[in-house]
Amino acid sequence: MFEFTIEQARGKARTGRLRTGHGDVKTPAFMPCGTFGAVRGVTPDQLRAAGVQMLLANTYHLMLRPGAETIAELGGLHEFMAWAGPILTDSGGYQVFSLADMRKVGDDGVVFQSHVDGATVELTPERCIDVQAALGADIIMQLDECSPAGAGADELAAAVARSAAWADRCKQRWERLGQTARQALFGIQQGGTDPELRRRSAAAIAELDLPGYAVGGLSVGESRECMVAVLDHVDEQLPREKPRYLMGVGEPRDILAAVLRGVDMFDCVLPTRNARNAQAFTWSGRLRLRNATFARDGRPIEPGCACQACRSFSRAALRHYFMAEEMLGPVLTTIHNLAFFARFMSAVREAIALGELERRAEQWLAGMYPAAAPGRG
Amino acid sequence: MFEFTIEQARGKARTGRLRTGHGDVKTPAFMPCGTFGAVRGVTPDQLRAAGVQMLLANTYHLMLRPGAETIAELGGLHEFMAWAGPILTDSGGYQVFSLADMRKVGDDGVVFQSHVDGATVELTPERCIDVQAALGADIIMQLDECSPAGAGADELAAAVARSAAWADRCKQRWERLGQTARQALFGIQQGGTDPELRRRSAAAIAELDLPGYAVGGLSVGESRECMVAVLDHVDEQLPREKPRYLMGVGEPRDILAAVLRGVDMFDCVLPTRNARNAQAFTWSGRLRLRNATFARDGRPIEPGCACQACRSFSRAALRHYFMAEEMLGPVLTTIHNLAFFARFMSAVREAIALGELERRAEQWLAGMYPAAAPGRG
Repeated sequence: MFEFTIEQARGKARTGRLRTGHGDVKTPAFMPCGTFGAVRGVTPDQLRAAGVQMLLANTYHLMLRPGAETIAELGGLHEFMAWAGPILTDSGGYQVFSLADMRKVGDDGVVFQSHVDGATVELTPERCIDVQAALGADIIMQLDECSPAGAGADELAAAVARSAAWADRCKQRWERLGQTARQALFGIQQGGTDPELRRRSAAAIAELDLPGYAVGGLSVGESRECMVAVLDHVDEQLPREKPRYLMGVGEPRDILAAVLRGVDMFDCVLPTRNARNAQAFTWSGRLRLRNATFARDGRPIEPGCACQACRSFSRAALRHYFMAEEMLGPVLTTIHNLAFFARFMSAVREAIALGELERRAEQWLAGMYPAAAPGRG
Repeated sequence: MFEFTIEQARGKARTGRLRTGHGDVKTPAFMPCGTFGAVRGVTPDQLRAAGVQMLLANTYHLMLRPGAETIAELGGLHEFMAWAGPILTDSGGYQVFSLADMRKVGDDGVVFQSHVDGATVELTPERCIDVQAALGADIIMQLDECSPAGAGADELAAAVARSAAWADRCKQRWERLGQTARQALFGIQQGGTDPELRRRSAAAIAELDLPGYAVGGLSVGESRECMVAVLDHVDEQLPREKPRYLMGVGEPRDILAAVLRGVDMFDCVLPTRNARNAQAFTWSGRLRLRNATFARDGRPIEPGCACQACRSFSRAALRHYFMAEEMLGPVLTTIHNLAFFARFMSAVREAIALGELERRAEQWLAGMYPAAAPGRG
């Protein structure tokens, strides 16, 4: 069922199509995060209307509450969250390393205490696949060990070796469960910012011939230059005919840098988290909607935007909602930001098809990252 | 423009139609509260889909923030909150008495400190009409003095006299502003639970021949019996040909009691506030969605309900959202409760038309207020 087709390739950048059991996704694509099985405050109808193609849901959060078995019993994650489109679940590993208490990593997996109820939980490569099979997403991720920025060479090398071994075990479990037709398993490259480790990690997972590959361990605190230096080698290191997914990256300038280097998929909390903090994305920079500048501004967030927020609400109304702590402020701004990201990715695909991405990217960056102005940030 | 037509009258109960500049409202009608110029977390499209006919917005909150003049500048309240249907604004008086600090009431009006920024604000009958004219709702309310339950006879009598005098001043201002064609002014009956004061209050405002009349000062802590005893006299005390609005009442059994006694309009925070506290209304009682009973319950809140929540989400998913403090829980439950209230009022109108309200009300009450069961409350 799962299939990736490259449609146009221009330099390293390419447009394509992911075929999944829940519909197609045009790439390059951005996936918003539905952490608890919902994009916060936004209904599936609103997501669809905003142009969202595919969602990411967090295995770590869902396995702890309400539990993967509960979701399976209720018909799986698509049914549970009422999202009929494609879903990707991460492995849970990243959150174990960032959220859980008292974790112990060994070659077999990781044992940690749930931040919800303190229960001791074990996540092995096999359990990671079992849990994701129960959730039933269209794309599932291998368990990996994500090292923090600034990790030492030995630590990084060990994480690369362990992640490669876990990829192999995940693949075996995935094949044994008979999930290969229903769910596409992606491997994850690690290696921090060390070129040789990145090369070694990519080679190890590429050998497994998985349906897709992710670049992990970036956007964890390293400098932008270091991230881009890693991305410079993605095209030579990860199989060209497979989709490439840069995990946790959503800053538009980073998306552009990555697409120009051959990346096809992205996820990030940026549009949704920033919306809840009253920050709205536009082609001419971000608006901080709590700014007094907007108190009597009758214009929509972005003139010309066809999203539900921009069609009906003024900046003044949105500012008021944020000042009054009215939930509709975060809801409408999330809808706008997701619509903006959908338009942005659509413009990226169009520019690739026309062979103009590099030129247009420069113009977009000049607009999106202007010098600071009141209410912009 | 404003017109009230009684369609069917059965005993004291009647169905009718309010015609406003923003569309018609079938009565008896329930108005949800859009306190800050939004029903919390719910978009106008979702309100409309839930069957909401008309909204109430709070003058007190909006005059303090963002300010009535700001809303007027931005095109008025309908435009500001993107609600094209009818709106009623209250006078602000009730919130002054329940929320503001350091208020001083005199014959001219009330002076208080804003709970938002501590500013000293004066609300006179004239200012109350000016503010509501700036907001531009279809129905506006006179400034009144609402006495707390248990107020002494002298205090109640003084509030009745003052409210009657303020009704007259509101009417004069409303006529002077030339708002009579655009906005319908309602008078408010006060008098606590004292029959003679209620009679006197009704007579004073009825004399003004206003487009509609409200019963104020109930649902402020008095017993249910005392409330019903006041409602027993509504039909004889308030003009039959005018719409009658029972302020702040939304408990379904109280709505039924009031409709049977000739009331046409209601508002209350009950469906929206309770939704945010995970309480869902159904014909067979309320569900407390956080209850463990629902952890694996794949049914919708109310089987057969066509609302957006019930069409797509299980009780288990909603419980999970509440447990995870995911905003979509309150949003979806609010949508369901509003859809329930819309269906309830529609059933009430149908039963009146068939001359069966009394009989059906008994059945409904037996279903809606069952003996306590797990997850019901």
